[in-house]
Amino acid sequence: MSERVRMGMVGGAEGAFIGAIHRMAAALDGGIELVAGCFSSDPSRGRATAAKLGLPADRSYASYRDLVLGEAARPAGERMEFVSVVTPNDLHLPVAIEALQGGFHVLSDKPAARSLEEALSLRASVEQSGLVYGLTHTYAAYPMVRQAREMVLDGELGAVRRVTVSYPQGWLASAADTGGSKQASWRTDPARSGESGCFGDIGTHAHNLVEYVTGSRITEVCADLRSLVEGRLLDDDGAALFKLENSARGTLTASQVCAGEGNNLNISIYCEKGALLWQQEDPNRLQVRRRGRPLETYQAGTDCAYLAEGARALCRTPVGHPEGYIEAFANIYRDFAARVLAHREGSLAAASDIEAGVRGMAFVRAAIESSRNHSSWVSLRPLWEEPATQ
Amino acid sequence: MSERVRMGMVGGAEGAFIGAIHRMAAALDGGIELVAGCFSSDPSRGRATAAKLGLPADRSYASYRDLVLGEAARPAGERMEFVSVVTPNDLHLPVAIEALQGGFHVLSDKPAARSLEEALSLRASVEQSGLVYGLTHTYAAYPMVRQAREMVLDGELGAVRRVTVSYPQGWLASAADTGGSKQASWRTDPARSGESGCFGDIGTHAHNLVEYVTGSRITEVCADLRSLVEGRLLDDDGAALFKLENSARGTLTASQVCAGEGNNLNISIYCEKGALLWQQEDPNRLQVRRRGRPLETYQAGTDCAYLAEGARALCRTPVGHPEGYIEAFANIYRDFAARVLAHREGSLAAASDIEAGVRGMAFVRAAIESSRNHSSWVSLRPLWEEPATQ
Amino acid sequence: MSERVRMGMVGGAEGAFIGAIHRMAAALDGGIELVAGCFSSDPSRGRATAAKLGLPADRSYASYRDLVLGEAARPAGERMEFVSVVTPNDLHLPVAIEALQGGFHVLSDKPAARSLEEALSLRASVEQSGLVYGLTHTYAAYPMVRQAREMVLDGELGAVRRVTVSYPQGWLASAADTGGSKQASWRTDPARSGESGCFGDIGTHAHNLVEYVTGSRITEVCADLRSLVEGRLLDDDGAALFKLENSARGTLTASQVCAGEGNNLNISIYCEKGALLWQQEDPNRLQVRRRGRPLETYQAGTDCAYLAEGARALCRTPVGHPEGYIEAFANIYRDFAARVLAHREGSLAAASDIEAGVRGMAFVRAAIESSRNHSSWVSLRPLWEEPATQ
Amino acid sequence: MSERVRMGMVGGAEGAFIGAIHRMAAALDGGIELVAGCFSSDPSRGRATAAKLGLPADRSYASYRDLVLGEAARPAGERMEFVSVVTPNDLHLPVAIEALQGGFHVLSDKPAARSLEEALSLRASVEQSGLVYGLTHTYAAYPMVRQAREMVLDGELGAVRRVTVSYPQGWLASAADTGGSKQASWRTDPARSGESGCFGDIGTHAHNLVEYVTGSRITEVCADLRSLVEGRLLDDDGAALFKLENSARGTLTASQVCAGEGNNLNISIYCEKGALLWQQEDPNRLQVRRRGRPLETYQAGTDCAYLAEGARALCRTPVGHPEGYIEAFANIYRDFAARVLAHREGSLAAASDIEAGVRGMAFVRAAIESSRNHSSWVSLRPLWEEPATQ
Repeated sequence: MSERVRMGMVGGAEGAFIGAIHRMAAALDGGIELVAGCFSSDPSRGRATAAKLGLPADRSYASYRDLVLGEAARPAGERMEFVSVVTPNDLHLPVAIEALQGGFHVLSDKPAARSLEEALSLRASVEQSGLVYGLTHTYAAYPMVRQAREMVLDGELGAVRRVTVSYPQGWLASAADTGGSKQASWRTDPARSGESGCFGDIGTHAHNLVEYVTGSRITEVCADLRSLVEGRLLDDDGAALFKLENSARGTLTASQVCAGEGNNLNISIYCEKGALLWQQEDPNRLQVRRRGRPLETYQAGTDCAYLAEGARALCRTPVGHPEGYIEAFANIYRDFAARVLAHREGSLAAASDIEAGVRGMAFVRAAIESSRNHSSWVSLRPLWEEPATQ
Repeated sequence: MSERVRMGMVGGAEGAFIGAIHRMAAALDGGIELVAGCFSSDPSRGRATAAKLGLPADRSYASYRDLVLGEAARPAGERMEFVSVVTPNDLHLPVAIEALQGGFHVLSDKPAARSLEEALSLRASVEQSGLVYGLTHTYAAYPMVRQAREMVLDGELGAVRRVTVSYPQGWLASAADTGGSKQASWRTDPARSGESGCFGDIGTHAHNLVEYVTGSRITEVCADLRSLVEGRLLDDDGAALFKLENSARGTLTASQVCAGEGNNLNISIYCEKGALLWQQEDPNRLQVRRRGRPLETYQAGTDCAYLAEGARALCRTPVGHPEGYIEAFANIYRDFAARVLAHREGSLAAASDIEAGVRGMAFVRAAIESSRNHSSWVSLRPLWEEPATQ
Repeated sequence: MSERVRMGMVGGAEGAFIGAIHRMAAALDGGIELVAGCFSSDPSRGRATAAKLGLPADRSYASYRDLVLGEAARPAGERMEFVSVVTPNDLHLPVAIEALQGGFHVLSDKPAARSLEEALSLRASVEQSGLVYGLTHTYAAYPMVRQAREMVLDGELGAVRRVTVSYPQGWLASAADTGGSKQASWRTDPARSGESGCFGDIGTHAHNLVEYVTGSRITEVCADLRSLVEGRLLDDDGAALFKLENSARGTLTASQVCAGEGNNLNISIYCEKGALLWQQEDPNRLQVRRRGRPLETYQAGTDCAYLAEGARALCRTPVGHPEGYIEAFANIYRDFAARVLAHREGSLAAASDIEAGVRGMAFVRAAIESSRNHSSWVSLRPLWEEPATQ
Repeated sequence: MSERVRMGMVGGAEGAFIGAIHRMAAALDGGIELVAGCFSSDPSRGRATAAKLGLPADRSYASYRDLVLGEAARPAGERMEFVSVVTPNDLHLPVAIEALQGGFHVLSDKPAARSLEEALSLRASVEQSGLVYGLTHTYAAYPMVRQAREMVLDGELGAVRRVTVSYPQGWLASAADTGGSKQASWRTDPARSGESGCFGDIGTHAHNLVEYVTGSRITEVCADLRSLVEGRLLDDDGAALFKLENSARGTLTASQVCAGEGNNLNISIYCEKGALLWQQEDPNRLQVRRRGRPLETYQAGTDCAYLAEGARALCRTPVGHPEGYIEAFANIYRDFAARVLAHREGSLAAASDIEAGVRGMAFVRAAIESSRNHSSWVSLRPLWEEPATQ
């Protein structure tokens, strides 16, 4: 009867940035209903959040285990159908595995896990479960990123030759920042964040964006990472040369100590016959530079008939009515809900994002290894092909 | 117990652009629940929309009168609390009056009505009702527009001298467009749109933006309007010189026949010591040009401590995570819901937007009169001060 | 033998902004040689400038009359061929007439004169002389302005519907500015500047730009001018509605009290099928917005084969190597030198800019009249068609 | 008496792009006079160019040796004082040495030579001669690049942490381009261009820009170069990680096969407290992003009192009157002429650019070595400290 998909959430108590974003994204299009949650490891904080969100008290759980068990015990038409995981990285793996084992689909914040080994282990669980596993690589869900991908795959610009991707942020520019916020403190803590700081947190976004837009995988990396701010245990700044399977080359920079920058992810894809340039802070425009032609700016909009169908489908408003980060996030939720619905209908083809998650962690591992080894070239394929060692 | 405000909607069946935007805006922050509606004058279309939105069949009504009566008959803790009016202009007045008389607050799409007389009549009803009346002047709800307003009112740039506001759109550039879409057809029909086409539809946005940012009212106008596309009965293109009460002068251009433009509302406010420039298509940035200083770009973001508090409060994301049109719309819904909650609590101070609505219609009337009279200067104050003549 | 054209200059002593620009512009392409001058009304300042410029002492003259007489007395192959007039406005007419009567071509800074009457009188002299008269409307000489003109004339975008031109400057924002600089003091003095301040100084640039790009003349104007800064005798801020002969409408704003602005001349031309947008501060790009297409940015460059031939001919560098204000000025000098060479060869067809000069002064006069008469519409054609009344 | 400096030129016959630029740059400010030249290895082409430039026939020489000998034989107050070398790379060394040996100062197009060995050899000659040697690293002569340098050196933004420099061009994107133009053919010919194609041609610009702005030298490089277009003998695309002496890190990309790009040199310098961003295609603006502050845009202009004095001195026009590539080039000529005048006056302190030239070639050599050796890190210091091996 109802088309709505029922969601439970782990993490995201009041004050957590990304949890609120996930909830807005889930709510935006009306196709998802938040029905349960374990919003905090502190039960009273969790209950307060649940109350604020209008959830009945008995669907606010004290632990993610309780959430899975409690919801599994409810009638099929009422219980949650998927778990949205918005915790720090250290819980990505255990929550996802618990949920999958309980029969629930999983939509996880990135990165997939703290390490390559965890990601491989998660892959095994996902494959075994037959359930839908999604990863919120937000930036790939912008309409104009999709447009770029379609244009590359369509071949109209010829083969990709070079990719320049850069992701400078400034919010961890000084040691003082680390203590200042909850988000900063766990991100700089190896136990919670994983083996990498900056490369795990945003390098994986840049890596995913390159692979998404080019439709090609990064196979080798030559990296130079470091912990620039005194006292940091994890990398907060780094850069890499890389190779794509299609023989294109590129550079990737990711840094969280670039004082003055906000969230300046940007990518340039140079092809045989032209270039594509996109900046996350100006997301509704894609610059297309064709050889010997005026520069073109493709714009997002439901009425932009020249866009690829897949790109247009990600728009909600006509041209000139800007959409943003929350809408990109909502595109992920909308797509994930559709996959859950397809699964309900018996489709087994539902695409999983676990491979992208594993490749992301392989990229981080390779970058760390390369950096430790005088920036020697490290191959990624052997890493992501490795079977899980549980 | 719950803090959520309950909403009914009139208009906005599947396929209507603005209705869907209103629903996303209402849903975004989790503080409003859609509980009832009369989505179409065609009952079966209305029912289909209601079903799609997950509303129970008995809260989908065949007429706005039924909606008001039906909801009024429900228990206080369950019935809708306000009506969102997202119909073509001709229904703004009757729906609003019906709702107010039924004891419901009203949040109406702009313009307030089809004519100055209707707006004056609506003002009388609003005043009599003691209820909250809101008007969705979306653009004033962007954080950086709020920032501009605070900077002007704060006086740091000195007195306003000149305002240039321009609102070119291109979607009605040819006669063919009129028939092509539902939205175009009613907007070019005097019976449904009112006495003005372009100036009523978007000129009122420009007018409101000028008054909102400067905190000063437009008192005189010298206009040149026309119906450029053959066969049009209403203006589709025009410009005006204007005067503000504070002695500043300005120009306002509004056109829907500027082929190639999307929704390019933009405003420049020139003050004694500097200028403020804002473009709706790049909404998260406000350019500030101070005499003898580097150009500055203020950015939206919850973490931008240099912003005025009121502007920052309209942000949901940190700097570099773009928000857009839907979030601006959601700011209006959030603010309106707060006013409804305040009214629940007995506050009578809840600000109403009806004066802005009346002034908007006075502006349209004055522009038409001026244009018909060889662009002579026409005063607005006598128009908006006129008592309603019903 | 040599193809170089010999120039004399009146005005432009050390420290004068525009004189130095004229000299750089004349020198840039190697086709013009400065051979004589009367650089200042103060003979010793004039001599100092001449010496600095490497001119022999006997070609530095104490008055413009001496310049004309002295050069006329030299052998034909040696004497100057044209006079570049870079004085304040009050000398434009007498110097030009003296030069023409002495048989020398004239290239004058704009505006043509202090008033409509002076311009009409100058027109009579130019016509009588059969010599070349040029006016340095710099902005029309940018390659991308020429490109815009070619695209409008070529008709590919359909008829022009609306033009928005705006020219805000901030350098006269306060009373203190007036005394602060030589340039400011004469520009605000009716005896030297003429009947208008801002509209004569930069409104004429905006007027010329509109007519140049559209290939159509402004026939009616409805204006609102004022002297905003206390103590000013001439207008320093104003705006106007206008009509073009082809039935297009527009707005023109010109102000020198917009604190924070530099030299932000910008124009938007809306046509049936698309729009052209150009900003002087970003001169090498022309935005072209075609209906239903990606936005386009045409770029200046000798290698941009898609440009109109006339636009490309104004470029000196390949795409990506920016040219600027001095190069635009040099385009005027190059073109003027070509006209002088053509005249040498006996061509009588050499186009004169005097009509544009007269129309500019008619525009100023009409704007003043309109403004004094409650912004009534004033026709320009009767003004520029009027015979000179000497 | 006259302050003008007399210039001879080698290379730059009609049709050569860069020769004409050099001449415009030399002419712009009136301080340099072209008095002699050997414009082509083809004597008749050379003579034709000389005639066109208005040079007497006896100062158009058939070989650069003749130029040096012929001019040396003229009286001191008449003969050229310096040689501007605008030939393909293979002649940079021999012409410069000949000129120095003849007692003439040298202003050379970049790179200094074809190889590190040649550059070292040239350094020895320069040092021995005591004459002024200049290198036209154009981009360092833009006012806003100078401003960036001053801000970095002044320390207000704290230590440099990361530099991202990218220089994509598209004019050699296909094999067909190589044959298409004179400039392309010599640049892809090892005998004329030297050991590197792209890195020698534009990588050296990027290298110089990094060192100029940061005031720090690149000490190590880890590079990945290749010849992408089939049949090319020299690199046409590459990227590198690098380290600066002050411990900052960076990436440098240089490519001439990025179809769709013009001359998009751009640099970002991230410091402890803020960032500086500059794009050559928009040269009059420098973005300054300070932590927790609005973004700032510094603008070029003689009247921008907030600029560093050294930056302002490179401007010719007030803010809002764009300058460009030719003016940047002219800044080099103006500065070089001042050095020549200082030398005339007996100053021996005249700074030479030869060290920058040697470091540029060391950078190219190191990049090639690194690339051949699996992108291992290569130190530059041993290369540039090496004594010349004549």
